[in-house]
Amino acid sequence: MPDDSRNEFKGETPSLKAVIKELCRPASYEAVYHRHWQEVPMPSGEALAEMVERLRAVLFPGYYGDSEVTPESMGWHVGAHLDAVFRILAEQIKRGTCFVCDREEVGQCADCEAKARNLALRFLARLPHIREMLAGDVSAAYEGDPAAKSPGETIYCYPSIWALTNQRIAHELHELGVAIIPRIITELAHSRTGIDIHPGARIGRRFFIDHGTGVVIGETAVIGDNVRLYQGVTLGAKSFPKDEKGNPIKGIPRHPIVEDEVIIYSGATILGRVTIGKGSVIGGNVWLTSDVPPGSKVIQRQDGEG
Amino acid sequence: MPDDSRNEFKGETPSLKAVIKELCRPASYEAVYHRHWQEVPMPSGEALAEMVERLRAVLFPGYYGDSEVTPESMGWHVGAHLDAVFRILAEQIKRGTCFVCDREEVGQCADCEAKARNLALRFLARLPHIREMLAGDVSAAYEGDPAAKSPGETIYCYPSIWALTNQRIAHELHELGVAIIPRIITELAHSRTGIDIHPGARIGRRFFIDHGTGVVIGETAVIGDNVRLYQGVTLGAKSFPKDEKGNPIKGIPRHPIVEDEVIIYSGATILGRVTIGKGSVIGGNVWLTSDVPPGSKVIQRQDGEG
Amino acid sequence: MPDDSRNEFKGETPSLKAVIKELCRPASYEAVYHRHWQEVPMPSGEALAEMVERLRAVLFPGYYGDSEVTPESMGWHVGAHLDAVFRILAEQIKRGTCFVCDREEVGQCADCEAKARNLALRFLARLPHIREMLAGDVSAAYEGDPAAKSPGETIYCYPSIWALTNQRIAHELHELGVAIIPRIITELAHSRTGIDIHPGARIGRRFFIDHGTGVVIGETAVIGDNVRLYQGVTLGAKSFPKDEKGNPIKGIPRHPIVEDEVIIYSGATILGRVTIGKGSVIGGNVWLTSDVPPGSKVIQRQDGEG
Amino acid sequence: MPDDSRNEFKGETPSLKAVIKELCRPASYEAVYHRHWQEVPMPSGEALAEMVERLRAVLFPGYYGDSEVTPESMGWHVGAHLDAVFRILAEQIKRGTCFVCDREEVGQCADCEAKARNLALRFLARLPHIREMLAGDVSAAYEGDPAAKSPGETIYCYPSIWALTNQRIAHELHELGVAIIPRIITELAHSRTGIDIHPGARIGRRFFIDHGTGVVIGETAVIGDNVRLYQGVTLGAKSFPKDEKGNPIKGIPRHPIVEDEVIIYSGATILGRVTIGKGSVIGGNVWLTSDVPPGSKVIQRQDGEG
Amino acid sequence: MPDDSRNEFKGETPSLKAVIKELCRPASYEAVYHRHWQEVPMPSGEALAEMVERLRAVLFPGYYGDSEVTPESMGWHVGAHLDAVFRILAEQIKRGTCFVCDREEVGQCADCEAKARNLALRFLARLPHIREMLAGDVSAAYEGDPAAKSPGETIYCYPSIWALTNQRIAHELHELGVAIIPRIITELAHSRTGIDIHPGARIGRRFFIDHGTGVVIGETAVIGDNVRLYQGVTLGAKSFPKDEKGNPIKGIPRHPIVEDEVIIYSGATILGRVTIGKGSVIGGNVWLTSDVPPGSKVIQRQDGEG
Amino acid sequence: MPDDSRNEFKGETPSLKAVIKELCRPASYEAVYHRHWQEVPMPSGEALAEMVERLRAVLFPGYYGDSEVTPESMGWHVGAHLDAVFRILAEQIKRGTCFVCDREEVGQCADCEAKARNLALRFLARLPHIREMLAGDVSAAYEGDPAAKSPGETIYCYPSIWALTNQRIAHELHELGVAIIPRIITELAHSRTGIDIHPGARIGRRFFIDHGTGVVIGETAVIGDNVRLYQGVTLGAKSFPKDEKGNPIKGIPRHPIVEDEVIIYSGATILGRVTIGKGSVIGGNVWLTSDVPPGSKVIQRQDGEG
Repeated sequence: MPDDSRNEFKGETPSLKAVIKELCRPASYEAVYHRHWQEVPMPSGEALAEMVERLRAVLFPGYYGDSEVTPESMGWHVGAHLDAVFRILAEQIKRGTCFVCDREEVGQCADCEAKARNLALRFLARLPHIREMLAGDVSAAYEGDPAAKSPGETIYCYPSIWALTNQRIAHELHELGVAIIPRIITELAHSRTGIDIHPGARIGRRFFIDHGTGVVIGETAVIGDNVRLYQGVTLGAKSFPKDEKGNPIKGIPRHPIVEDEVIIYSGATILGRVTIGKGSVIGGNVWLTSDVPPGSKVIQRQDGEG
Repeated sequence: MPDDSRNEFKGETPSLKAVIKELCRPASYEAVYHRHWQEVPMPSGEALAEMVERLRAVLFPGYYGDSEVTPESMGWHVGAHLDAVFRILAEQIKRGTCFVCDREEVGQCADCEAKARNLALRFLARLPHIREMLAGDVSAAYEGDPAAKSPGETIYCYPSIWALTNQRIAHELHELGVAIIPRIITELAHSRTGIDIHPGARIGRRFFIDHGTGVVIGETAVIGDNVRLYQGVTLGAKSFPKDEKGNPIKGIPRHPIVEDEVIIYSGATILGRVTIGKGSVIGGNVWLTSDVPPGSKVIQRQDGEG
Repeated sequence: MPDDSRNEFKGETPSLKAVIKELCRPASYEAVYHRHWQEVPMPSGEALAEMVERLRAVLFPGYYGDSEVTPESMGWHVGAHLDAVFRILAEQIKRGTCFVCDREEVGQCADCEAKARNLALRFLARLPHIREMLAGDVSAAYEGDPAAKSPGETIYCYPSIWALTNQRIAHELHELGVAIIPRIITELAHSRTGIDIHPGARIGRRFFIDHGTGVVIGETAVIGDNVRLYQGVTLGAKSFPKDEKGNPIKGIPRHPIVEDEVIIYSGATILGRVTIGKGSVIGGNVWLTSDVPPGSKVIQRQDGEG
Repeated sequence: MPDDSRNEFKGETPSLKAVIKELCRPASYEAVYHRHWQEVPMPSGEALAEMVERLRAVLFPGYYGDSEVTPESMGWHVGAHLDAVFRILAEQIKRGTCFVCDREEVGQCADCEAKARNLALRFLARLPHIREMLAGDVSAAYEGDPAAKSPGETIYCYPSIWALTNQRIAHELHELGVAIIPRIITELAHSRTGIDIHPGARIGRRFFIDHGTGVVIGETAVIGDNVRLYQGVTLGAKSFPKDEKGNPIKGIPRHPIVEDEVIIYSGATILGRVTIGKGSVIGGNVWLTSDVPPGSKVIQRQDGEG
Repeated sequence: MPDDSRNEFKGETPSLKAVIKELCRPASYEAVYHRHWQEVPMPSGEALAEMVERLRAVLFPGYYGDSEVTPESMGWHVGAHLDAVFRILAEQIKRGTCFVCDREEVGQCADCEAKARNLALRFLARLPHIREMLAGDVSAAYEGDPAAKSPGETIYCYPSIWALTNQRIAHELHELGVAIIPRIITELAHSRTGIDIHPGARIGRRFFIDHGTGVVIGETAVIGDNVRLYQGVTLGAKSFPKDEKGNPIKGIPRHPIVEDEVIIYSGATILGRVTIGKGSVIGGNVWLTSDVPPGSKVIQRQDGEG
Repeated sequence: MPDDSRNEFKGETPSLKAVIKELCRPASYEAVYHRHWQEVPMPSGEALAEMVERLRAVLFPGYYGDSEVTPESMGWHVGAHLDAVFRILAEQIKRGTCFVCDREEVGQCADCEAKARNLALRFLARLPHIREMLAGDVSAAYEGDPAAKSPGETIYCYPSIWALTNQRIAHELHELGVAIIPRIITELAHSRTGIDIHPGARIGRRFFIDHGTGVVIGETAVIGDNVRLYQGVTLGAKSFPKDEKGNPIKGIPRHPIVEDEVIIYSGATILGRVTIGKGSVIGGNVWLTSDVPPGSKVIQRQDGEG
């Protein structure tokens, strides 16, 4: 249980100098200190945020970035943004690679930069696909929410579109094997929207999350087309096997598969590699850890007294 | 199901130039592109955020804005803020109107600006009422949370007061028929607090939401006086009728009515146009889709094994 | 029930001038106006945010602040940060004290500044302890999430570490009796992460909150070592006794005790001064208001039809 | 002579309120108050500064703006910058026109916006010419200063190139008849470099001003090719005829003509519509108010005693 | 003569640590180190710059600050600005007093704050006078420069008006005996415009400085009405008596008196307590150290050869 | 003579597209385009400005940077600043080297980074010397200006001290052979103060420039101890030999030598490698191109008529 009484400085309040000395002992800092590896700095959340805003301007012209873009001027703006995105991304991929680098692979540092540029270019080639998917998400949001007055309103105001833009960008980077960068990109959206979708999650067309706060979608989740979620839904892992050292084994499929046309109401929790069959409806606050056949309705039992 | 394999650029990585060209094809962008309508720019989230901060300084003098305001100097500061608010708001209302404008009403653009100014002025006339409601919310927060040390602390630190300030402002604008602006104002608070209250919701006196993250209150919800909510509570819609084209019919009452003195504990989900009778208590994580008579207690069944 | 019809300005839209006059009547503003006390300004959220960022740079060298810090240069950077932290904190503690000051204690204002400096110094002496606790949280996060690729990734990206850093700082200030400042510090993290832990909560070693959005941990909660929580978990109060005036009595133990090795899945709600015995597992969405013996498993009943 | 003794508030120090009242009397402010004309705001120095920086990025690619621009990506960056420049400039020209508008021309306001756009476009068509002139200035600076190590250094560090960039931009706008905007653009450079060249001055190729502080070149000055000036040189007006009301008659040629290959050393003052003949050298601190034939050397007499 | 060879670290390049140690020896820093006096911080150039911008908005409504101010809203804006100016100024006067404080007067610190507030209020009472003087300067600028198209243009673009605004503000503070603050205010304008007028200079009505770079007007200069100066004019001191320790005696009249209607052309230098008689014209680059009777013309001799 | 009539786009106004195309032709941009060399970016004026501000905080503790530094905390602040300065400077030196790099030396790029770090360290070792020189400049300013109320005031407000700080820093870098960086550092001061001192100038102890606007001191000037200058003084080159291609030969001594105790009044111009003997006084606006023996007084002849 928590023990607040321990104090490195027994008896009396130490001087500022003594505190600083204590904090600079290697034994104090070694577990929480990041050393530059090959002089490459940390990935920059700020640079990635700028990159994502430039991508938003490219993906939704007129809504983000220069609001006066026309079909005639679009080529210049898209070009200038993507030229910048390419350089930011190549640099950040390189930093991400170094951040997670196994120090025995030093010999491979040489082509790390070339690899990063190649990955950045391959990511850019996925942008038409990302935009197409997001256009589907926009019409799903408009159709799925009676409070939406126009598709444009969902692009401009809905946390669902914001979070999915980040996730679909991050997912393509994740598929390319890029380290840590995708996670930072989805955290940017998590912090703003309360929607936490892991970059690894595979999400189909026309996906909509209404309100969204508290939604969690895990790394190996698979979501079909035309799925709709409400706030507080969890698609999580039930448990996970550990290796002989007791560390969880990474990368095993452990999150749900949600088939096409499924609706999951607010607060429902679905855990483990279960399949929610096509067209099923999962009620609010339901807790599910087993497969559900297509067309099911699962609701929470309710008891009241009054 | 999600199909990551599709690629506009089969076989090899395309050049940046080819990606840009692809993204500038009308077929690629038309569903996600915003065209200026009559040269009027988009509503500005930044301008609205400034406006709300100025209103906060007016509504809670000394807590926000110039902290050294005195009864003697208050007139100048309130005057200067409201003069600025008036102009920001009139401009943003005009932009919002154009954003949702049905292009066949072009003839009515002429008086769009005059209408916007009139609406802005009518909104300002509601500020004394808004402040009075918020003063009630403040004492409800102080009385409702044993951790609160003073009413001032709830003004300064509590997400509930922050979110309600935005919502009560947005609600008055919503009542005046202002388009999209109210929604942007509540989203500003949603992003910061995790509390998502639609501008349309009608909320009584002395309302308090403790902690708040994940709370959702829908467009047609009605909340009485002295109601208290906890985090993760949903007052949502159960389902909604669609028109012959399959689009949801907008504007139908579809969210709960919560009468005076009701308490709803964390994670409870109440869906549809149901009425929670006066003085009822709804337990945590309960899922409710039917009326509850006054004075009820509804709790979740619980099973355990150990 | 809400009554939108009331209007101070019956009949017609008033002038801006009339609105300003109305808002400057003492009767309108007195409940929501903060008067300077002894000319001491309000605590500054901005200054506290800077302070916490400097502390983050001290606690996690290389991850935050100057990313190129080396063992050789660490003393200068830690020294410069803590010297600034000391002054910011002493000033903010003084402001916080005045903010809550009972105006009858005026005679004690004289040594208020000296007290604030002493408290700031005593806080700094707790930093080695705070860092040690956070180092434990980092390894718990790494071991507890199969999606984490390295401990460093959890320092850099995980909302759990961010929120715990703020809370462990705020908790030490709370233990020293500092007013309001700790609460502002935890709200900074609440707004960013959706994790709302009261500064008063006592938290053991190696604590991990996965995803985190919607987690609420109350003022008098006690959490053991090696505890893991998921998003949406509430450790709240069930009800609280009121004094003769109907105000809640402050400071009574009213939140759960969670013993070592407990896991609580997403959306679970545990209310009141109950004890969750060592090693217990509480399932998702469970609603618990009574003690649970060590080693228990509590799951939600589930009903489905399809 | 100055009389500091006058005081509106005789006898005693007035209240803040009385001062404010006095300052808001029309008689107090009418001479120094700008009224919006047709609701068009003032020209924005900030917007013009952004515009000039974008033009600098276009004129000197790689030196200003995106430093990593390549021949391949240049089209996008130049396009995006000029698209923005076009809109900023059209807006600012319109504002400038309204700022100086004779209120009897109201009928012509209608096409004011269209005219502004046309002028902006005609300005843009002069950019290749402006760049060509500046390229000449750059080699003149490199060749004219033994301290310059490369032409690039003069682009990057020399106040002469900075000031000429602003002036050559402003001059083209001046030639198009644009009001006030050109003057704001040259003042931006004057404030930074101490070089004050009126937008109306006509300047030939390969012009160089070494050091530059205190240089003044008047509205109707004409400067040939390959001219070199040093700091503190004035090309000013001697006197100017006034109209019957005693106001100076605007627009009459009243500044010097400096022919090709002339060098003017620091501090020299040349006043009036005089001509400095080709290839002349004017010594430091000389004061000249008459024509000088080609090939002249004019030096100051000097007396010393020791 | 300069001796670059000396090096504290003979023989070899020292470590960073050794440099830091050397710089922290009292013998190294004592002559250039500022110690807080009574914990009062230094005057803040940033705060004073904000204050001057607020005063500019008050003095020239519509040109600076909120450009949409109307006669109706002027009271609020002027009030809010001056309320802020009052507090900024009182604080900065107090800091300035401490900065120059003779440490033997400690006993008088008690009422230092009250004195500062009184001085700030007395300054504010001079604002109508300052505005009236500036209105005269504006018409002098318009009438004195054939390139000026309207009086408003001189308010908005002319360095003369900018510099005189700062100086006339600073002069009133100087007359009130405020320490150092006036000098910082004139330096703000000097840095921007190149016009260096000491706060002590007494300047009459309708003063105009064309172009202005390099103008210097000393502490005890006196300038009449309707005087016009050009760039590079110096009204300086010739020499100054020293006290027995060899320090210059402060405060003795030592700069020129320039009577009404005088014109001084660019680069002229006038030194010492001489009087330039009413209506005189001083030519460019003239160097003057003796009295000149009213109506004189003084020009530089010129010699040329060709 | 200037020919404004030329237009690449004869006859009619071209489209924006045509302008962009024209500006992207290599023939248009090649003379003004900077290509990255070895992917090393341009030196950053912003980074150098930050570096100089950190150095100012080190050189004048308490006046700049953290104003509350004490003898106890000085080591941390100086250490943290210099650690940052070291890294900024090493990076900028590397960039500067690449900016001027002769492309045939490619083989030497390898150790460019190591050289840059070594130069940065050697610069830091000169800081105690720089501070000592500046301390002398401060007392010279205080003693030389009757308007100065304390030495601290000159540190805080006098452009002379500001400009000399930049120049003495830049001079040490110039002595170490660092390319372009020193010039950018002195231009930062030139732009702010109007004082343009080349980094190459060798300046003795206790140097003071009063007012300063328009002062120019050339690359090879040598200035003794206890020299005082006023505004507008030029220590320049008279002419310079050119090589066979007509380019000026770089680096030849061509600026004045000013011996100890010399005073030069405002606007004086001294050109060429002349020597101003010890203790001489040069009057205002004098134009000098020959040696002056020690103890001379040189004044301008003056003629007047009235």
